[in-house]
Amino acid sequence: MYCGGYTGKILRLNLTERTAREESLPLETARDFIGGTGLGIKYLFDEVPAGIDPLGPENKLIFAVGPFTGTTLPATSRMAVTGKSPLTNAVGSALSGGYFPVELKRAGYDALIIEGKADKPTYISIREGMVRFRDSAKVWGLKTTDCQQIIKDDLNDQNIRVACIGPAGEHLSKLACIINEYRAMGRKGLGAVMGSKNLKAIAVRGNGSVAIADQEKYDHARKEMLAAFKESPVLYPVFSKLGSSCAFTATTELGIFSARNWTATGAFVPIKEIGVDAQEAQKIGKTGCFGCPVACARLSLAKNAPYTGTLSEGPEFETQYSFGGQTGVDNLDAIIAADRLADELGLDTISAGVTIGFAMELSEKGLLTSGDTGGMDITFGSHQAMLALLRMMAYREGIGDLLADGVKAAAQRIGNGADRYAMHIKGLELPAYDVRGAKAHGVNYATAYSGADHNRGYAPQEIFGMPIPYAVDRLSIEGKGKLAKWNQDIQTALADCPTICSFTALMALLEHGAEIVARLMEGVTGLVYTPEEILRVGERVNNLARAFNVREGFTRKDDTLPERLMTEPIPDGPSKGQLISKEDLNRMLDEYYTARGWNLTTGAPTRGKLTELGIGYVADALGL
Amino acid sequence: MYCGGYTGKILRLNLTERTAREESLPLETARDFIGGTGLGIKYLFDEVPAGIDPLGPENKLIFAVGPFTGTTLPATSRMAVTGKSPLTNAVGSALSGGYFPVELKRAGYDALIIEGKADKPTYISIREGMVRFRDSAKVWGLKTTDCQQIIKDDLNDQNIRVACIGPAGEHLSKLACIINEYRAMGRKGLGAVMGSKNLKAIAVRGNGSVAIADQEKYDHARKEMLAAFKESPVLYPVFSKLGSSCAFTATTELGIFSARNWTATGAFVPIKEIGVDAQEAQKIGKTGCFGCPVACARLSLAKNAPYTGTLSEGPEFETQYSFGGQTGVDNLDAIIAADRLADELGLDTISAGVTIGFAMELSEKGLLTSGDTGGMDITFGSHQAMLALLRMMAYREGIGDLLADGVKAAAQRIGNGADRYAMHIKGLELPAYDVRGAKAHGVNYATAYSGADHNRGYAPQEIFGMPIPYAVDRLSIEGKGKLAKWNQDIQTALADCPTICSFTALMALLEHGAEIVARLMEGVTGLVYTPEEILRVGERVNNLARAFNVREGFTRKDDTLPERLMTEPIPDGPSKGQLISKEDLNRMLDEYYTARGWNLTTGAPTRGKLTELGIGYVADALGL
Repeated sequence: MYCGGYTGKILRLNLTERTAREESLPLETARDFIGGTGLGIKYLFDEVPAGIDPLGPENKLIFAVGPFTGTTLPATSRMAVTGKSPLTNAVGSALSGGYFPVELKRAGYDALIIEGKADKPTYISIREGMVRFRDSAKVWGLKTTDCQQIIKDDLNDQNIRVACIGPAGEHLSKLACIINEYRAMGRKGLGAVMGSKNLKAIAVRGNGSVAIADQEKYDHARKEMLAAFKESPVLYPVFSKLGSSCAFTATTELGIFSARNWTATGAFVPIKEIGVDAQEAQKIGKTGCFGCPVACARLSLAKNAPYTGTLSEGPEFETQYSFGGQTGVDNLDAIIAADRLADELGLDTISAGVTIGFAMELSEKGLLTSGDTGGMDITFGSHQAMLALLRMMAYREGIGDLLADGVKAAAQRIGNGADRYAMHIKGLELPAYDVRGAKAHGVNYATAYSGADHNRGYAPQEIFGMPIPYAVDRLSIEGKGKLAKWNQDIQTALADCPTICSFTALMALLEHGAEIVARLMEGVTGLVYTPEEILRVGERVNNLARAFNVREGFTRKDDTLPERLMTEPIPDGPSKGQLISKEDLNRMLDEYYTARGWNLTTGAPTRGKLTELGIGYVADALGL
Repeated sequence: MYCGGYTGKILRLNLTERTAREESLPLETARDFIGGTGLGIKYLFDEVPAGIDPLGPENKLIFAVGPFTGTTLPATSRMAVTGKSPLTNAVGSALSGGYFPVELKRAGYDALIIEGKADKPTYISIREGMVRFRDSAKVWGLKTTDCQQIIKDDLNDQNIRVACIGPAGEHLSKLACIINEYRAMGRKGLGAVMGSKNLKAIAVRGNGSVAIADQEKYDHARKEMLAAFKESPVLYPVFSKLGSSCAFTATTELGIFSARNWTATGAFVPIKEIGVDAQEAQKIGKTGCFGCPVACARLSLAKNAPYTGTLSEGPEFETQYSFGGQTGVDNLDAIIAADRLADELGLDTISAGVTIGFAMELSEKGLLTSGDTGGMDITFGSHQAMLALLRMMAYREGIGDLLADGVKAAAQRIGNGADRYAMHIKGLELPAYDVRGAKAHGVNYATAYSGADHNRGYAPQEIFGMPIPYAVDRLSIEGKGKLAKWNQDIQTALADCPTICSFTALMALLEHGAEIVARLMEGVTGLVYTPEEILRVGERVNNLARAFNVREGFTRKDDTLPERLMTEPIPDGPSKGQLISKEDLNRMLDEYYTARGWNLTTGAPTRGKLTELGIGYVADALGL
């Protein structure tokens, strides 16, 4: 294997011992897992034993960029964080963009592995080859924007980039995320893991550059990538203009924009109030991640009292769904304010909004009373309640403590059948896309290693009708097991590992991306891949992640959907009458496991499949 | 006159024409006015004709640093902004520190003169010798912290420094200030002047250095300055630790911490709730301006609902007075939140708090009703009302529109004798220090060119008993006219012109500062001064400022105090029974004018005095 002298570097930081150690990234690991999510899951499986408390010092957080990060390739300032999720007890994986990833790579690192627990609130600075564990008394308790600025001031370096938790992470909310700039490594509660380690922030500044193994091949492949971006019918013409909000129109037109805790898909769609036109009217500018020509992020400004003057980067489509749809709030200013507040508090917008919608339905059903809420009216549509609950969740005040760990934990504490209204899979709150009207999404939600996670195997075939590797009818269950598997693997291979922004990968790279990424890998690293080998990385990572979950006790029975989606059809609109019955789900799962080469009874990978993927040691570890 | 080749540079920016023009700073101007406030008032008098609308395009804003800014001298990253005040129609002058001043100087400029009015919202960037007038659609409407960050992102330069207005300035609130970093060029409504010019922000980045004319003399004088800092009994031992809050203890012990719209001096002092110990408990760290060894600024964090997690730099003593004392709010978290909110909205904290206290008293007296407030309860002590009113003032919502221009304008609109409760001088709301128990402060408030402005001639002799150039009994009126004159001139000469932070100047430089500043001027610029000539600069600037006001129609009758302070004695506490009667005030004013060599009847400078100060042309301009 010619590798052009490619060497990766890991920085291992132990908070208990206050030590920093550089390690080489083993070449086989680099080859087989590429970077990002792949590296994270590899280290997680190998180093974090089964059954540990996700909020204990044994858990680890692996921040990993990809081999493309820091090059001149567009949409590659991207980073994955991986750990055992306190929300699901499964693999917790989240990605963000911004500027931090490039800074980390330029500091010389492909990954940080954070271990142990600091004895007091701490932040870490990494610059000029020096790692320091710093007292974070000056930033503990701060919201994320202030935290980033005060650290820059404290280090007298306005160019250093900071990833941090907010009050939610400090209070160990299992909905806590990690924020860098305006970007969230959201969902799965990895912010709480950071909080449990007494780690408020990581600040990093780099001044190195990324070596290119073969400049000519790199330049050629880069041109192919840029051409693919240009040729995409949606990336520049639609997505660059509207951002992720373009999904708002698509899902409302298909009748799969879910609302009011999934009771109102198709019915509650105040398009005039919170739809794309309304959002465009609130847009004051665009912004983007480091070096990205797409710049999909919108800057939105609330324009009416009492939210006037509140800026948010976003709200992204999924936040429209959670703070708009799920809560029944049709006040776009309030949605903008909630988006900003969630970012400041370090709360995942999807899970937080779904949890608030859940509480609102429980209030409607009488399962939460005025006594529980401290007299606050939390009926659907109350934007005041939405904002108040967000804050209370981050600080665990009053009913906020009950809701701070998401719908599954809250339903368990409430009892009385509340779990019927808890819209989650494996503990992770459902994202948008009513899967009853988009079945491949249903299979992905049910099987993704991180729970109900639209980003692990998004099916653009069903939403945007592109690209079409299989014939797809979004309402049919036929072929959806295979399609979900294909989507999961390709998204992992083309987006989450290299690391390329998944928006751009989904919109521009699905058709020829494997070829392009293979050539880019050779150009950047000297490692030679066939397109099939690139896709195989995606499959390998999904198998390894599944193996982690199996080791934690997950089985086929956990690959399911909330009862509501299997028994209550969509009440009206273009997808009226649709549901995914248990039988439908089981048929799709059978197809999915078969496509994966997994055990149909247990849902576990087989020794044969693992060996075929070159990770036979995993079969040994699982005792297969 | 040897000047070591000293040359200063002015950048004149015309928003109407979108032109930028560099001019030399005339050497005589540099010598006679030094910099900062001196330069500002010189250009204001010479270039802004009498009677113009302060919010019209004829008004100008002069941002001026001093000759020491950008050197290695401590506490000199300081900048004055000068214009005709829309709040007082007199000279409007405000100073701030932070990092912007050094950046402006390093960009090569001693002053910016902003003229005209942009035809649409604009911001200006100055870097690498390039000036650009930029569309500010992306930041118009933003709060000040967001504005600064978005501009840094927009210019792809995290090291650029930004001075900007918030929503209050955009809405032409006459209480609007200009914010750089966490610092306010407060009071006198110069933020509204910036707003009236459609100028949201100025961003500046410099990479030059400041020439030193005589390094040996400079080094020697710098050591003297540092020694004076060290020898001060308060600067490091008290002020560096507590910040401006140290005045809280002094004023409450003397019974001159005024409260509840000046009805309760001495009575309302919830020392336990908002005093120094309480503030220290909320302090999470310290910070300071560029290169300052004192670092007096405190970072305070609100710790209780609903303000939990709100950070402010401060609150400074004057903000404790306005959002604590004047409103009767004894909730320190709310005071911290109000401090932050005011900074974000770009509202002056002193004037805003006094205006809210005024509204609260009017509510108590029945001059404002529930109908006026939209049903909001605005009784003294309501922290909810304080926060709500602040926001409403910045956006001119509801009763906020009535209050947005301060107490004088509001009282005129309300009528019914409301002016009796309007605590202002020349339109500027009163700062802390109940002058009834500190008479030199009373003379300064009555005569300062910018209205009731503690920073134009602070009398530390009365509050801290130091230094003692005259015998002082704070309760006596004897010698207070002369003392006020001395304080005004020395503060202008040692702090506002060179520019040195007035906290450090007051605490460390009053006794030998004129000698030190004279030697520093020679070291830095080559311009040779005697100590008397340095002090004479202060007198010259105060005369020129007074001349500007005379030209605008101000006379002795405007040098007065609110009726309340002349008729209602302090009700209790260590200063019980004190007031400044009209007779007392007149006696002190006579002494003041005599010391100044001004006309006792009109309060105007005489031709003789102006000529003696080398600004005889001013007498011509005034037709004296």
